[in-house]
Amino acid sequence: MVEGTPKTVVMKFGGTSVAGAEEIKRAARRIVAAREAGARVVAVLSARGKTTDELVASALEISERPEPREMDMLLSTGERISCALCAMAIHDMGHKAISLTGSQAGIVTDSSHTKARIIDVKADRIREALSEDRIALVAGFQGVSTESHDVTTLGRGGSDTTAVALAAALDADVCEIYTDVAGVFSADPRIVPDARKLTFTSYEETLEMAASGARVLQLRSVEYARNHGVRIHCRSSFDDGEGTLVVTEAEVKARAKQENVEQPSVTAVTHTDDEARVTLVGIRDEPGVAGEIFNALAEAGINVDVIIQNEPVGDDELADLSFTIDRSELTAATDALSALGDVSQGVRTDDRIGKVSIIGAGMRSHPGVAAKVFEVLGGEGINIEMISTSPIKISCVISADRVPDAVRVLHQAFELGADAVRPEEPEGAEHRPTVSG
Amino acid sequence: MVEGTPKTVVMKFGGTSVAGAEEIKRAARRIVAAREAGARVVAVLSARGKTTDELVASALEISERPEPREMDMLLSTGERISCALCAMAIHDMGHKAISLTGSQAGIVTDSSHTKARIIDVKADRIREALSEDRIALVAGFQGVSTESHDVTTLGRGGSDTTAVALAAALDADVCEIYTDVAGVFSADPRIVPDARKLTFTSYEETLEMAASGARVLQLRSVEYARNHGVRIHCRSSFDDGEGTLVVTEAEVKARAKQENVEQPSVTAVTHTDDEARVTLVGIRDEPGVAGEIFNALAEAGINVDVIIQNEPVGDDELADLSFTIDRSELTAATDALSALGDVSQGVRTDDRIGKVSIIGAGMRSHPGVAAKVFEVLGGEGINIEMISTSPIKISCVISADRVPDAVRVLHQAFELGADAVRPEEPEGAEHRPTVSG
Repeated sequence: MVEGTPKTVVMKFGGTSVAGAEEIKRAARRIVAAREAGARVVAVLSARGKTTDELVASALEISERPEPREMDMLLSTGERISCALCAMAIHDMGHKAISLTGSQAGIVTDSSHTKARIIDVKADRIREALSEDRIALVAGFQGVSTESHDVTTLGRGGSDTTAVALAAALDADVCEIYTDVAGVFSADPRIVPDARKLTFTSYEETLEMAASGARVLQLRSVEYARNHGVRIHCRSSFDDGEGTLVVTEAEVKARAKQENVEQPSVTAVTHTDDEARVTLVGIRDEPGVAGEIFNALAEAGINVDVIIQNEPVGDDELADLSFTIDRSELTAATDALSALGDVSQGVRTDDRIGKVSIIGAGMRSHPGVAAKVFEVLGGEGINIEMISTSPIKISCVISADRVPDAVRVLHQAFELGADAVRPEEPEGAEHRPTVSG
Repeated sequence: MVEGTPKTVVMKFGGTSVAGAEEIKRAARRIVAAREAGARVVAVLSARGKTTDELVASALEISERPEPREMDMLLSTGERISCALCAMAIHDMGHKAISLTGSQAGIVTDSSHTKARIIDVKADRIREALSEDRIALVAGFQGVSTESHDVTTLGRGGSDTTAVALAAALDADVCEIYTDVAGVFSADPRIVPDARKLTFTSYEETLEMAASGARVLQLRSVEYARNHGVRIHCRSSFDDGEGTLVVTEAEVKARAKQENVEQPSVTAVTHTDDEARVTLVGIRDEPGVAGEIFNALAEAGINVDVIIQNEPVGDDELADLSFTIDRSELTAATDALSALGDVSQGVRTDDRIGKVSIIGAGMRSHPGVAAKVFEVLGGEGINIEMISTSPIKISCVISADRVPDAVRVLHQAFELGADAVRPEEPEGAEHRPTVSG
């Protein structure tokens, strides 16, 4: 930021932060406060509370498989309502505001209705509003398709992506994501009461957290932020405390150095407890069988998480192939496999599967982390059924009912707790769940 | 309509006709039936049931005087929801449909937010949809402003105007207005049980009816239809019976001749019972005082209906000036008058005022009609306090509590009843109120 140039801030408020009239006024006050502090402010709003769910329900009353284009026309109304109401509140506070639809804000997408991707941001109208000293309120989650000029939506949680994309296009100083929790935590505070709010995390760590169960930020928005160098500040809309900054790994390191703290090997423990495992026993021994299986799953729209294939022991042994998926997709997965015919001798499923992961950029320079994870879980009598790793993450697939124990012992073993690292935590941060996007 | 060319039909469904999932499916079936009968179909939908009222309430929770531009952004979502849901229903019936916002449908307006006027209709996108064999579903009541490309709304009942404007732009064969009543009646059937559903009325008569209390069609939509020669068919969305055709006076006459019926002098009796009267006693005797008074009322946004000024009797007498307004605007009117200072010696108000009107193009050639009205009301002991006339209408301002009696005796005296003219009325038409737009 050049000295003297006004700061540009994009502020995003989630559904619970605009749920009722009081919440909208509270968001309006925060927006106005930022404006009065001298910033040029763009605010991206989600639909109010349960609005999107209600709209989906009314569509399902009409049709079992609503036409995607019409679904987008329907769902996009929720965010527009939030923006119009918030603009009214800001006007009453004596400031100028203008609400903009995704289309008016220049969010240009492809034509994949209900899961469109942003392909361009033509923020001229926002720039014009800012130069006229207005606060721009943008309907999140939506855009306009480049060819047919139809309303599109970006998929659930897409408002985060709207905010980050606008921050990138406007070269904003920061993209603030306001939710009902205080930031990104070292573990889910509902499971680990002394979970610590992180001051900084890197894009890479945040991506791994988002992918391994922490409902922290929409994965795509973090990718977009990393690719365009957008600083994200996750914070609570209900108190003024600092939240968590998501920035480059270099900045995280520099900050640690500045504060004279050694970078820890592990930053956070994340988990899921709603997975299922499918095991294909004795898969047909010929090239291309695995490809056939995962193509069939992909065509059914099923996201496969961890995959392992055990090596056959003897010459006439066949290999077993296991993978994990979202529990809600188990029936669809077994249906897709049945349709393939005799790819294996049998299919076993387990719908009580969970996963615990430890994440930390510091892992790269601490080779003993994996060993310690296995030792800690083993010491607790928790059986590791599958393992998946990346340079900054170790995930262990375990029984769903052991997930809370696993999170607790790992959090303690790697000394991630507030008690271990910093005894004084800002008020109100302790008993909140991990950020949901 | 040229032989062989497909018919183009604009169908408009009001709020009660799309209130719930069942109603939307019923509207979809009617639309599909018209399409299957070979017509090119454009359907204009209102917001569902109470949606607009709920949106207004949520705005008033935020602000006492919501910003008009934002009000339009807010309210325009209601019709979009109806259109998206109806498009889904039509898809499920195996037809292609596309929902369009007012902007996408090319409804270009001026910038008078919450009461915009249509200044152009660029229906290219609708024509394209029709040529692709699609049913076009257009969000009523809204447009886009020509300069700033903001969402605008046309005021309450504006969906009728959207439908008529599209019918004009597309040179449609008919504009069908579907509501919860069967057509235009000779009087409100809640007051006159034998009120007759009219087969035809002229634009002029319909305008007078709309202006004198019949909640038949939005006044502006009838004006638009007359100016552009759009045939309107008012009918029920709940049964298949024919409704009322609103056409030129020449066509009404031709039909009457064809059916060998003499055109009646009076077509319908309309009424209001929610007016108030303001009397300025002894207004200041100088030029321009009346102008000053009515300017002040106009600036306060108050619609004045009937005005009379009595002539002073002696040389030093001052004139009294009386006018009627909507009862809900009485406080605003007296406030506006107080602000003017001493334009009169005093102000008297009466908030129990109603009006009964008889309407009929045939009145022009039947000079005795006014005399008969006064005689009939006098015979019933009903005091006429003010009179206002046009070539095809006579309105009498009376006490609100005598309105039902006045409607009944006039309806009977001019032999407008179904029993008098045609004893057999289609089933279900009798006990319905006059069409509400």
